[in-house]
Amino acid sequence: MSTIREKSYTELKQRLHEVNDLNKAAYVLMWDQSTYMPSGGASARGRQLATLQKIAHEKFTDPAIGHLLDQLMVANNKLPYDSDEASLLRVTHRQYERAIKVPAEFAASIAGHAADSYAAWAEARPANDFAKVRPFLQKTLDLSRRYADFFPGYEHPADPLIDGSDYGMKASTVRKIFADLRAGLVPLVRAIGEKSESDDSCLHQHYPEAAQWEFGLEIAKEIGYDLNRGRQDKTLHPFAIPFSINDVRITTRFNEEDLGDGGLFSTIHEVGHAIYEQGISTAYEATPLAAGTSSGVHESQSRLWENIVGRSRGFWAHYYPQLQAKFPDQLASVDVDEFYRAINKVQRSLIRTDADEVTYNLHVIIRFDLELAMLEGTLSIDDLPAAWHDRYEADLGVRAPNDSDGVLQDVHWYGGLIGGAFQGYALGNILASQFYAKAIEAHPEIPQQIATGQLDPLHTWLRKNIYTHGSKFTAPELIERVTGGEMALEPYFGYLKSKYGEIYGL
Amino acid sequence: MSTIREKSYTELKQRLHEVNDLNKAAYVLMWDQSTYMPSGGASARGRQLATLQKIAHEKFTDPAIGHLLDQLMVANNKLPYDSDEASLLRVTHRQYERAIKVPAEFAASIAGHAADSYAAWAEARPANDFAKVRPFLQKTLDLSRRYADFFPGYEHPADPLIDGSDYGMKASTVRKIFADLRAGLVPLVRAIGEKSESDDSCLHQHYPEAAQWEFGLEIAKEIGYDLNRGRQDKTLHPFAIPFSINDVRITTRFNEEDLGDGGLFSTIHEVGHAIYEQGISTAYEATPLAAGTSSGVHESQSRLWENIVGRSRGFWAHYYPQLQAKFPDQLASVDVDEFYRAINKVQRSLIRTDADEVTYNLHVIIRFDLELAMLEGTLSIDDLPAAWHDRYEADLGVRAPNDSDGVLQDVHWYGGLIGGAFQGYALGNILASQFYAKAIEAHPEIPQQIATGQLDPLHTWLRKNIYTHGSKFTAPELIERVTGGEMALEPYFGYLKSKYGEIYGL
Repeated sequence: MSTIREKSYTELKQRLHEVNDLNKAAYVLMWDQSTYMPSGGASARGRQLATLQKIAHEKFTDPAIGHLLDQLMVANNKLPYDSDEASLLRVTHRQYERAIKVPAEFAASIAGHAADSYAAWAEARPANDFAKVRPFLQKTLDLSRRYADFFPGYEHPADPLIDGSDYGMKASTVRKIFADLRAGLVPLVRAIGEKSESDDSCLHQHYPEAAQWEFGLEIAKEIGYDLNRGRQDKTLHPFAIPFSINDVRITTRFNEEDLGDGGLFSTIHEVGHAIYEQGISTAYEATPLAAGTSSGVHESQSRLWENIVGRSRGFWAHYYPQLQAKFPDQLASVDVDEFYRAINKVQRSLIRTDADEVTYNLHVIIRFDLELAMLEGTLSIDDLPAAWHDRYEADLGVRAPNDSDGVLQDVHWYGGLIGGAFQGYALGNILASQFYAKAIEAHPEIPQQIATGQLDPLHTWLRKNIYTHGSKFTAPELIERVTGGEMALEPYFGYLKSKYGEIYGL
Repeated sequence: MSTIREKSYTELKQRLHEVNDLNKAAYVLMWDQSTYMPSGGASARGRQLATLQKIAHEKFTDPAIGHLLDQLMVANNKLPYDSDEASLLRVTHRQYERAIKVPAEFAASIAGHAADSYAAWAEARPANDFAKVRPFLQKTLDLSRRYADFFPGYEHPADPLIDGSDYGMKASTVRKIFADLRAGLVPLVRAIGEKSESDDSCLHQHYPEAAQWEFGLEIAKEIGYDLNRGRQDKTLHPFAIPFSINDVRITTRFNEEDLGDGGLFSTIHEVGHAIYEQGISTAYEATPLAAGTSSGVHESQSRLWENIVGRSRGFWAHYYPQLQAKFPDQLASVDVDEFYRAINKVQRSLIRTDADEVTYNLHVIIRFDLELAMLEGTLSIDDLPAAWHDRYEADLGVRAPNDSDGVLQDVHWYGGLIGGAFQGYALGNILASQFYAKAIEAHPEIPQQIATGQLDPLHTWLRKNIYTHGSKFTAPELIERVTGGEMALEPYFGYLKSKYGEIYGL
C-alpha cells in the first residue's frame, strides 16, 4: 500500500471507530435502560440516546467518508474480494450509500418518535388499550412509507427496510419463501393436532429463580459463552447486545412457575446470538465488519442453539441428570423422555415468543403479511386489531381475548418503523437447519458429541465458518460459502418431520 | 424577550443539552465500567469514553456557543443576577472560557493518558510496584504543568486545576486555610492520643453483606434518597454519579468483617452526594447549572450526612435498635454508647478513606502539600514515595510498610492530572459544620428531630438553601448566601472539640 493510501485507510478506520464508539455507547445506554435504570431516568435517557444516534448518523454520513471510500475503492480494486480491506470498503460503502439517502433530521425524527411510541406501548399493552397507541402507530406507518421514498425504485415499500436487516432480500423473495414454508408447515401442524396432546405438566411446577439462573449460566458456559467477555442480567424482554467483540452481554427473564417460559431456553437463545458476536475476528473490532451479517443469519444461531441443540434428545441425554440434580423435588420422578416431549410440545398458541418450533413461523408469517398490507395501504391501522385476530383464527385456530395478546403483543411496530423486523425470525429457523446439516456433513460425529456434553466441536465449526467473518460476506454469500447453494427449505422440513414425526408418531 | 433573543437562547440550550447528553452518556459508561463490565470490555470502553469526551469537548468549544453567549449576555444584561437565565449564561460563559483555553488535542491526549495511567496503577497498587507507574506519573506531572500554561497569569501551577474544581480558590488561599486547620487539629489529635484508645471490637465481627445492604438502603431512604430516581450497586471504590437530575446512582462496597469499613457509612456518604444532585431544580436539567457547584460543597454534603448526622449520638439513639434487630448476634449485648464510641474511634492510620473525622484532614493536607511541591518542581517523582512516608511519620506518627498503602493508595494522581483533586475533601469537612450550624440556627429542633428519626426537616432545609441551586452560585456566593459570611473554621473546630471532648473526656 502506498503511503497516501495507507494514510487514507487509517483515516477512514479512525472515522469508523468514532461512529462505532458512538453506536456502542448508545447500546450501553439501551442495555442499562432495560436492566437497571430507575423509572425516573427514562426521560433524560430518551434524549441522550437520540443525541448519540444523531451524532453517529452525522459522523457516518460525513462526505469525507464518501471521498475516502471512493478513493480507496479505486486504489484497491485489485485486492481479493474476501480480503479484510476490500471487504471493509465494500461493506462500509454499502452502508454509507444507504445512510446518506436518509436526511439527518428525518433519522432524528424517527428516533424521537420511537421513544414516544415505545412509551405509549409500554402503558397500552398492560392496559389493553389499542386506542392509546393508535395515533403513534399511524405516524409510524407514515414515517415508514416516507422512509421507503428515500430509496426510489423499490418494488415494495417494505423492501428498503427488509434490505436493511436482511441484505439482498425483498418482500417478493420473502413472500415466496414464506408461501413454501407455510405450505409445508400447515399439514404438519394439522397432523400433529390430530394426535393426542403432549403432557408438559412437569414444566409447570415451582422452579426457584436462583437455581434456574445457575443452571442457565452453566449451560451457557458449556456452549462456550465467554463470561470474561460477557455477562447476564435480568430484563423484561430478553436480548443480546454487543458493546465490543470482547463485551457481548445477554439478558434473561424467569417464570418460576414454568420452566419452559424464559429462563433456560431464553438464555440459550441469547447465548446463540452472543457467541456469534464474540466469535467475530478481532481484526474487525469497531468497524462495520464487527457485527453479525443479517437478521436471518443472527437468528439462525440463536435458534440453532436453542432448538436444534437445546431441545434435542442428545443434549438432554447428557444434561438432564444435571437438571434433575438441580431440581430434585420437581424432576426426580420425571424421566428424560417425558421431559423431552414436554419441552417439544406443539400447540396452537397466542404468543409468538412462547411458540414451539413448529408453529413459531406461522406467528412470524402473520406479522409479515400484516405489515406488508399496512405499507401497501390495503390494511388501515383501524382495521389492524381485527385483522390480527382473524389471521390467528384462520392460521392457528386461536383468537386472543384482547389486544394485549393480539396486536399489542410485540414491541417491534412500536419501536420506530414498520417493516423488516420479523422476517429474520423465520429465515433464521430455515438457515439454522441448513447450517447444522452442513456441520454434520463435515463432522458426522457432532450429534454423538452433543450427547456426551461436547458442545465445543460444533461451536468451533460455526465460529470458523460463520462467526469469524462478521459482516464480511452478505447472507446470500455466506450461505453459498457454507452450503454451496442458496437458502433452501428441505433441511428444515426434514428436521421438523424427523423430530416431530418421532415424537408424535406421524 | 425578543424573538431573536428567544431563538438564540433556545439554540444555546439545545447545544448545551447535546454536550450534556454526551457527558452523561460517558458517565453511564464509567458507571458500567466500575460496576458490571466484564474484564474483556476494558479496552473498547477506554476508546468509547475517549471518543465521547472528545466530541463533547469539540461541541462545547464550538465558536457558535461563544457567539451565542456574547450576544445573549449583552442582550440580557438587565436580568437579575440570580435569575435562571442570567445564571445559565454566566456559568456557561465561565466554563466555556476555561474550555476553549485547552486545545482539543491536548484534552484528548489527557484522556488517553489517563486511561493508560489508570491501568498501570490498577496493576501497580496490588503489586506494590511504584516503578511501574513512575513513567506515567512523570508524564502526568508534565501534562499538568502544560495544562497550567494554558492559563497564563496563574500564581501557582495548581491554581487552574484548583479553580476548576473549587472555583474562586487558589493554592495560596487553600494553603492558608490548611495551615489554620492543621494548627487546630494537631493539638486535638495529640490530646486524644494521650487518652486510652476506644474499643471498637464490636465492629470487627462477621456482618453478612446482605443484611448490611438492606440496612444501608433503609437508612438511605430515611435520609430521603429517592430510589425511583436512583439505585445502588456494588463497586470497588464507591462513588455517586448523576445521569440526570432524575437518575443519580450510588455505589458501595462491603467488608463483612468490619462494619465500619465500607457498607453503611459509605452508603450514607454517597447518599449525601446523591441527594444534592437529586435536589437540583429540574428547570436546570441537562445544562451546566445541573451539577453541584464545587468539589468542596459537594463533599460538605457527603460528610454532613455521613459524619455530623450518621455518626451522631442522636441518630443512633433512634436507629441503633433497628441495627441491633438486623444483627442481633453481633450487637444484642453491645449498648448504644459502646457502638457510638466505636464508630467515632480516633486513630492515627495509614489509609485516608478509612480515617476518622479528626485525622482525615491531615491525610488530605499531606497530599495537597505533596502535589503542590511536585508542580513547583521542588519534589521529584523519584523522591515522592519517600516524601510520602516521611510526611506520614511526621504528621500522623505512622509509616506504611510499602508503597501500596503509601503513594499508590489513592487513584487521583493516576487519573489524568495532578492538582486540584484533594483540597475539596477537607474544605467539605469545614463547610459541613458551617452549613449544619446554620441549619440549626434556623431550626433549633433539628437535632431532636434526628434523634426521633425525622431526617426530612434537615434534608428540606439543605435542599432549599443549597441543593436546588445547582451551580447557579459559586461556592463563595453560596456560602455567603447561606451563612452571611466566608468559609470559617470555627464551627468545625467547635463541632470537633465538643464531640470528641465528650467522647475522650478532654
